[in-house]
Amino acid sequence: MTSAVPPGEFEIISRYFARRSARSDVLLGIGDDAALLQVPADRRLVAAMDTIVEGVHFPAGTAARFIGHRALAVNLSDLAAMGAEPAWALLSLSLPESNPDWLQEFSSGFHDLAQRYNVALVGGDTVKGPLVITVQVLGFIEADHALTRGGARPGDFIYVSGIPGESAAGLAVIQRQLQGGTAGDVLQHRFNSPEPRVALGRTLRTLASAAMDVSDGLLGDLGKLCDASGCAAQLEMDRLPVSPSMPALFDAAAVERFALSGGDDYELLFTIAAERVPEFEALCGNLEPACTRIGRITQRDPGQSVVQCLRGGRAVTVATSGYDHFAGA
Amino acid sequence: MTSAVPPGEFEIISRYFARRSARSDVLLGIGDDAALLQVPADRRLVAAMDTIVEGVHFPAGTAARFIGHRALAVNLSDLAAMGAEPAWALLSLSLPESNPDWLQEFSSGFHDLAQRYNVALVGGDTVKGPLVITVQVLGFIEADHALTRGGARPGDFIYVSGIPGESAAGLAVIQRQLQGGTAGDVLQHRFNSPEPRVALGRTLRTLASAAMDVSDGLLGDLGKLCDASGCAAQLEMDRLPVSPSMPALFDAAAVERFALSGGDDYELLFTIAAERVPEFEALCGNLEPACTRIGRITQRDPGQSVVQCLRGGRAVTVATSGYDHFAGA
Repeated sequence: MTSAVPPGEFEIISRYFARRSARSDVLLGIGDDAALLQVPADRRLVAAMDTIVEGVHFPAGTAARFIGHRALAVNLSDLAAMGAEPAWALLSLSLPESNPDWLQEFSSGFHDLAQRYNVALVGGDTVKGPLVITVQVLGFIEADHALTRGGARPGDFIYVSGIPGESAAGLAVIQRQLQGGTAGDVLQHRFNSPEPRVALGRTLRTLASAAMDVSDGLLGDLGKLCDASGCAAQLEMDRLPVSPSMPALFDAAAVERFALSGGDDYELLFTIAAERVPEFEALCGNLEPACTRIGRITQRDPGQSVVQCLRGGRAVTVATSGYDHFAGA
Repeated sequence: MTSAVPPGEFEIISRYFARRSARSDVLLGIGDDAALLQVPADRRLVAAMDTIVEGVHFPAGTAARFIGHRALAVNLSDLAAMGAEPAWALLSLSLPESNPDWLQEFSSGFHDLAQRYNVALVGGDTVKGPLVITVQVLGFIEADHALTRGGARPGDFIYVSGIPGESAAGLAVIQRQLQGGTAGDVLQHRFNSPEPRVALGRTLRTLASAAMDVSDGLLGDLGKLCDASGCAAQLEMDRLPVSPSMPALFDAAAVERFALSGGDDYELLFTIAAERVPEFEALCGNLEPACTRIGRITQRDPGQSVVQCLRGGRAVTVATSGYDHFAGA
């Protein structure tokens, strides 16, 4: 794997990133000034871009394979939240040094995930700088089928996929170097290899009234969905999916905190209109991952908090908030 | 301009970046998980992404307005080199701190250029981290009209727009804090506010056989164009456009070095087939900036360097090379 001379900028691109794609809609990929792509005439283009920074989005020392996976996964998660079908990606890699082993692992993590979702890497940039990775993804959606955050209406039921909080718990396991056995491994995996819910998003695009991905914490993100929809929400705490892994390492208060405000889940948070619920629930047994009904959209009331947490049917106060990069800056 | 409390992540986006666009093809812009865009059915999509890093692509302390301009300009330059019409951009901003004055200036530099080219900012990401800016641009091109690096053929004439080297000379003026009077101001402006050659690219798309933008130095970039086209080139040094500004501050050797290997020009380097030259030359008087014929594409010969420099019709050796971020890493 290791070559004697560290690869230069153009060798990095050709050796680790320029792979021939099977996609016939890539008319020109890596190697020219820009990529040339063909969007199906009956589709809309969906575009997202996310950046991850060492020490902010993943701990320093994280295995390069996980970083490569994460950089693409967090972007595919945005497409999933729109109900889109991923197609192409561009990758910007700011690297402190040209390390062949690191590049091999990083590119493997990236390409393995890309391959599973039939995503072609079509361009980008490689520069010397602090470790900062930006990925831009492009996908398609049928006209008028895009899932937005703004379509929820009072009476809609609120669902979430997977088990929010497990990723944040996994990060805590890593950062505190907890010896967690199998449960610890499951949680670390949840943090290190988030799975974008692309198939679920495709299923939801004709069923859900609104959707978003949960990246900054369930409670904060539900608030954003409510803001976009001009509604409020009741979150039934008793319904939150129970993690089989978190209680082995954390007390009940920590588990609840992870579930409500832990970031990096990359699960889908979505709403289904009451009349579509039977149709959706009939599908639920076949969905991967399982989806859980956690509350209901309500009318917005100026005197009331946007997201009201209920326990045993009674409103409770929960001290937590979503992630803001510059909060208290 | 300055608010008492530094803006948080979501306020940064809404206050400085979320502007309503006049483009009707932006179905959903900033604020959801991804943007929703409509590509004209008869066009191909052109996608480029470039990153700029403080201390690498611009000196620490550069005015934020210039950084915002540069981040978009270097990307529009890639679209120009393909002959594409710009449409949309996504912006990833990794920032050490939330500074309202900086953000105001940065966003003004970005938006002013975007507005001139009718580019809508449709998404992106704002994170805390070292100062690294990535922009991704999307544009359109008519089917089969894309200008690539690979279309040059022996006998084609080589042209370059503007005056390569002035930008690198401008950077030298800034870094060495030279007192250069008007000439120094012109050169600094060339570095700080590169103008993407979008209109020229659109003109060339049906005229040129190959094109690229000059970002890593004329000689190195001409080599890349030759590599992509499977050809070689003769560069006539006597024909290089003469800068009215560089000689006021630098000796002849430095001027030549800037012209041949100085980066950051963002001019277009392109080739015109001999039979199209009269048509092109007839247009030349109206082109902005002026374009200069600087050599000819030749057959590739294994025993000969890809780019041969001629002075007074005789081959000369020039010690210079293009920019590689990890050269000698």
